[in-house]
Amino acid sequence: MIITLKKETPQKEITRLIGQFESRGLRVNLIQGVNYNVFGLVGDTSHLDERMILSNQWVDNVQRVQAPYKLANRMFHPEDTIVNVAGIPVGASEKVVMIAGPCVVEGEEILCTIAEEVKKAGAVMLRGGAYKPRTSPYSFQGLGTEGIRELAAAREKTGLPVVSELMSIDRIEEFEENVDLIQIGARNMQNFDLLKAVGKVNKPVLLKRGMSATIEEWIMSAEYIMSSGNPNVILCERGIRTFEKYTRNTMDLAVIPLIREKTHLPIIIDPSHATGDWKLVKAVSLAAVAAGADGLIIECHTKPEEALSDGMQSLKPEKYAELVRDARRVAQAVGRDL
Amino acid sequence: MIITLKKETPQKEITRLIGQFESRGLRVNLIQGVNYNVFGLVGDTSHLDERMILSNQWVDNVQRVQAPYKLANRMFHPEDTIVNVAGIPVGASEKVVMIAGPCVVEGEEILCTIAEEVKKAGAVMLRGGAYKPRTSPYSFQGLGTEGIRELAAAREKTGLPVVSELMSIDRIEEFEENVDLIQIGARNMQNFDLLKAVGKVNKPVLLKRGMSATIEEWIMSAEYIMSSGNPNVILCERGIRTFEKYTRNTMDLAVIPLIREKTHLPIIIDPSHATGDWKLVKAVSLAAVAAGADGLIIECHTKPEEALSDGMQSLKPEKYAELVRDARRVAQAVGRDL
Amino acid sequence: MIITLKKETPQKEITRLIGQFESRGLRVNLIQGVNYNVFGLVGDTSHLDERMILSNQWVDNVQRVQAPYKLANRMFHPEDTIVNVAGIPVGASEKVVMIAGPCVVEGEEILCTIAEEVKKAGAVMLRGGAYKPRTSPYSFQGLGTEGIRELAAAREKTGLPVVSELMSIDRIEEFEENVDLIQIGARNMQNFDLLKAVGKVNKPVLLKRGMSATIEEWIMSAEYIMSSGNPNVILCERGIRTFEKYTRNTMDLAVIPLIREKTHLPIIIDPSHATGDWKLVKAVSLAAVAAGADGLIIECHTKPEEALSDGMQSLKPEKYAELVRDARRVAQAVGRDL
Amino acid sequence: MIITLKKETPQKEITRLIGQFESRGLRVNLIQGVNYNVFGLVGDTSHLDERMILSNQWVDNVQRVQAPYKLANRMFHPEDTIVNVAGIPVGASEKVVMIAGPCVVEGEEILCTIAEEVKKAGAVMLRGGAYKPRTSPYSFQGLGTEGIRELAAAREKTGLPVVSELMSIDRIEEFEENVDLIQIGARNMQNFDLLKAVGKVNKPVLLKRGMSATIEEWIMSAEYIMSSGNPNVILCERGIRTFEKYTRNTMDLAVIPLIREKTHLPIIIDPSHATGDWKLVKAVSLAAVAAGADGLIIECHTKPEEALSDGMQSLKPEKYAELVRDARRVAQAVGRDL
Repeated sequence: MIITLKKETPQKEITRLIGQFESRGLRVNLIQGVNYNVFGLVGDTSHLDERMILSNQWVDNVQRVQAPYKLANRMFHPEDTIVNVAGIPVGASEKVVMIAGPCVVEGEEILCTIAEEVKKAGAVMLRGGAYKPRTSPYSFQGLGTEGIRELAAAREKTGLPVVSELMSIDRIEEFEENVDLIQIGARNMQNFDLLKAVGKVNKPVLLKRGMSATIEEWIMSAEYIMSSGNPNVILCERGIRTFEKYTRNTMDLAVIPLIREKTHLPIIIDPSHATGDWKLVKAVSLAAVAAGADGLIIECHTKPEEALSDGMQSLKPEKYAELVRDARRVAQAVGRDL
Repeated sequence: MIITLKKETPQKEITRLIGQFESRGLRVNLIQGVNYNVFGLVGDTSHLDERMILSNQWVDNVQRVQAPYKLANRMFHPEDTIVNVAGIPVGASEKVVMIAGPCVVEGEEILCTIAEEVKKAGAVMLRGGAYKPRTSPYSFQGLGTEGIRELAAAREKTGLPVVSELMSIDRIEEFEENVDLIQIGARNMQNFDLLKAVGKVNKPVLLKRGMSATIEEWIMSAEYIMSSGNPNVILCERGIRTFEKYTRNTMDLAVIPLIREKTHLPIIIDPSHATGDWKLVKAVSLAAVAAGADGLIIECHTKPEEALSDGMQSLKPEKYAELVRDARRVAQAVGRDL
Repeated sequence: MIITLKKETPQKEITRLIGQFESRGLRVNLIQGVNYNVFGLVGDTSHLDERMILSNQWVDNVQRVQAPYKLANRMFHPEDTIVNVAGIPVGASEKVVMIAGPCVVEGEEILCTIAEEVKKAGAVMLRGGAYKPRTSPYSFQGLGTEGIRELAAAREKTGLPVVSELMSIDRIEEFEENVDLIQIGARNMQNFDLLKAVGKVNKPVLLKRGMSATIEEWIMSAEYIMSSGNPNVILCERGIRTFEKYTRNTMDLAVIPLIREKTHLPIIIDPSHATGDWKLVKAVSLAAVAAGADGLIIECHTKPEEALSDGMQSLKPEKYAELVRDARRVAQAVGRDL
Repeated sequence: MIITLKKETPQKEITRLIGQFESRGLRVNLIQGVNYNVFGLVGDTSHLDERMILSNQWVDNVQRVQAPYKLANRMFHPEDTIVNVAGIPVGASEKVVMIAGPCVVEGEEILCTIAEEVKKAGAVMLRGGAYKPRTSPYSFQGLGTEGIRELAAAREKTGLPVVSELMSIDRIEEFEENVDLIQIGARNMQNFDLLKAVGKVNKPVLLKRGMSATIEEWIMSAEYIMSSGNPNVILCERGIRTFEKYTRNTMDLAVIPLIREKTHLPIIIDPSHATGDWKLVKAVSLAAVAAGADGLIIECHTKPEEALSDGMQSLKPEKYAELVRDARRVAQAVGRDL
């Protein structure tokens, strides 16, 4: 950590600060410039709080040299992590994992039909929301427990492991028992109590990036889960909020090589939420595979125009099959399979 | 609601859609343009889902004419709402409410000292976090129940009602018993289960705007609380996330007249989080009062450089006293008091 | 165009407005709702100014049904435009065009070396800045006319057509004579006098998206060039500014299918500026090709660490050759060549 | 400047880098951490390019300790600059300067009427666009030279100095002769050739902040003008682009105290463009004065609904008079006049 002091800082204060850092086991190097004095702290600074140091009136600037995450940090864990989801490996050079299904579970029959269709098209996991975060209290909020039951039934029928979003701590047992990959949604990325709770669960977690979360904050949320005891975290990018309104969100695929550089965790992409428009989903999916994504989670529905949520971004099974076929070619072009 | 159809939409589909909307009790007006056909729906459209309609392949665009909120809507509730917080009225032309205290509760003695100092300076409520949302799992997470107890003790001593952030449903009884104004933080603005839960509580709620929430989404979150049964919602702006890095967040004070136009709820401002820098807090506070804010919530600490959280944005009591004095002059200049 | 009037609008005002629009040759349809009145205007509304209509106190909302661009609009020009750059076709299903070279021209010898290297690696055009927009007046501003001369010399030697950024109207003749593809940079995307000027030039134009320009504004800037007489516009996405700081900009590759849907113009991608980091350039390049980009413009330098500008995002020729080889495989996987 | 090297950097490279910096007259201090090596450079680093240093493969991070601007820097010029506009002082504790007028000049008669009205209401300068940057080529582009002539005529009649936007270098003589305060608009904030040109002019410059410019970039653009020879720069904030759509732009008034801290230049506020809605202009204006703005530039029109540009954000003279009256009270409450 590098701390810049104002040039008029009294010597007494400099000495006091050095003492304070040394008492925490850090070694302090001082650089004296014309207009500034700079401290370099050597040692483990991950417990220091930048904003607390900044509250000292003589401090002008604080910069972390080392990333604030440890367990997720590639530097301390150079090999790729492969997360096992009910037998399916995700990450490293494993096959690109195709996850598909409706935005929201609407009934057992329609869910099973969709599940069979996407399986036929090439999907290896089934997604579906039972508890739905909706902007309006007047929108359909999901089937709840009944939805989870229907997901389990669809898994029974098709053999596809299921992914579903957990919104609240009080449902955690239900999810641990019935869901193969527990999703933490974008709006809950910094619901820290929920992160700690899934950190104690014996199931892998799919952690979506928050709508306005920096990459660093996103990794720190993974760190919450990991430091609570659960190392099986898959990151999922779904676009961030920007001024652009032609798309629902703006998704920078540069996160794929970046996440690989900074962490050892698998990274999958959600082109449905990123674009919000089924017509754009295929191009973005192929791009994600070309950039090295470990998986794609895509909304599919047999009758999008009758879907109770987000039909606009849902692909019909035949379009999805086409996407899988083309994505496979792209995967092979970059030395991978799907 | 205005729905634009592509020009090549078959007549059969147009007829089908008209039937569908009419079956929901809406009246449909059709405008036929050269390149487009447009439907105008007349009636209560608040239960229609725009994105579901957009999923129809012939639909080009959907626009809401009426805001999607009802209970919070000024149109249906023209007079200002005044929220009563333990006897203190907030809103309309009532006094501008001054709330102050430490970011986080750190111990009874220091809390009481701060409480007495800010009361002397002019504060009428005490703020303090017992449960703290921190980006890093390695940062101090708050004293929890002990912090709530200390807040109650400080209220006992000073008579100041207390405001504190609730992060999780499982603490709701503790808050209902001990806290006078329950704060929902920016990170939980769309934690819908938590919103529904405080909607059933018999205490007023301070709803902070999410870091990247639109004004409409923010009002919709108030609507969640109100439609669950609790009409006592105070909105609190604390800045949004933008590309600018010289300030912690970017706070548009135009929200004050805007919120007054769109809703009947009180609106208070948090200049500490908005700026992230105590040196900027006073100017932004005076600006907020001039723009018509119903209150200011400000972080204060007797020793900011030793605070366990966000000392950087905390004012010392003497600076706060100066701020209150100047804010009072500005309040009076705009025909109000403080 | 759909205009929503407040419910309390006096009948007299409604009649006056109808008269006003009809006098401009538009047909007006009126929808009367419970809380609102809505006008639908039928006819050519591209000369109407939304904000002018909004200034009427009775108007609540104005929505364009038709995009405000015409010449660039796919609706009125369904077939893809192919722009010819000194014999090289760009767009439609033509080969993906590889453009490479240094950020800034630094001397004839080094420029020719780089040109020969990138040509060998697979580039078909040479990029290089002679006039450079730099944030600081103290940074190197480019060689100017001498730089243009060196570009011409490098073209002479290698046969590669050259691309360079024009910053000011007073250099337009120099560019018309010496440059094969005139680039308008992100900072000048709304320098409308410059757009009109290149609209009168007999050379194709590469129009970069502004740092915070919406897709619609970007297309409108193309419309400026086209409506001044130059139909040969290639759009170039280079990322937008967001809150994220791990990358220089945030580039949403969904613009590729979107631009294809909205316009008939070619679209190329600049992964160097989008990411600002050479380590991320390859992944984003492959992604862009997979998503259907018509070309890639990439910064290359034989000695990035000695480059006078943006060495950080420059690839060495051997890395570029690797990128071209892999991009070719991806192009073929999506049914195209390179 | 602080440069962080990766831990595996070879000693030879460290030695080479030290030599390179020392040869530029800088003193180098080295801090050796467990995972990193850090250089501190002492001396004048304003000519070093951060991104060039970052292009070295062993460099992990570069941080400026000193701001990259000098002439505009408060550190080297502690007293406030007062800019004289045709006899009217702007800045320091001078009167808050009220500038008003139409968005665009539409004819001599209407301009003179508006000028007389705003003068009566309390304005001391007249604004009006003769050359207008419009998103669409099909919108009214301003009267050009004729507009400048009309501004001069209105000044003749009312005695109000005039402010107008310069869009292109080829009009610079016209502006130097006829305009009292030359405005550089948001879209041209990084049109560096134009900045250099007005740096050589003997008239003060009003520099608007770009739509997505950081505060640092904005000050750097002032530095361009100042380093070209013109010290008379007034900064003007007009809001930045964000995801929020209820307002036209998002304006953080914290820029007022920030600009005062970082620079010695005057800062004025444009609430009309910031909000885009005349109903919000007054609240934001009062807020700006309370926060310490040196002036307000506000769009006024006698018939906003017939204005050729931006009538929506224009105040009628009677509303403006009310605003001036209330702003005066707020100015006096914060110890200033207007």
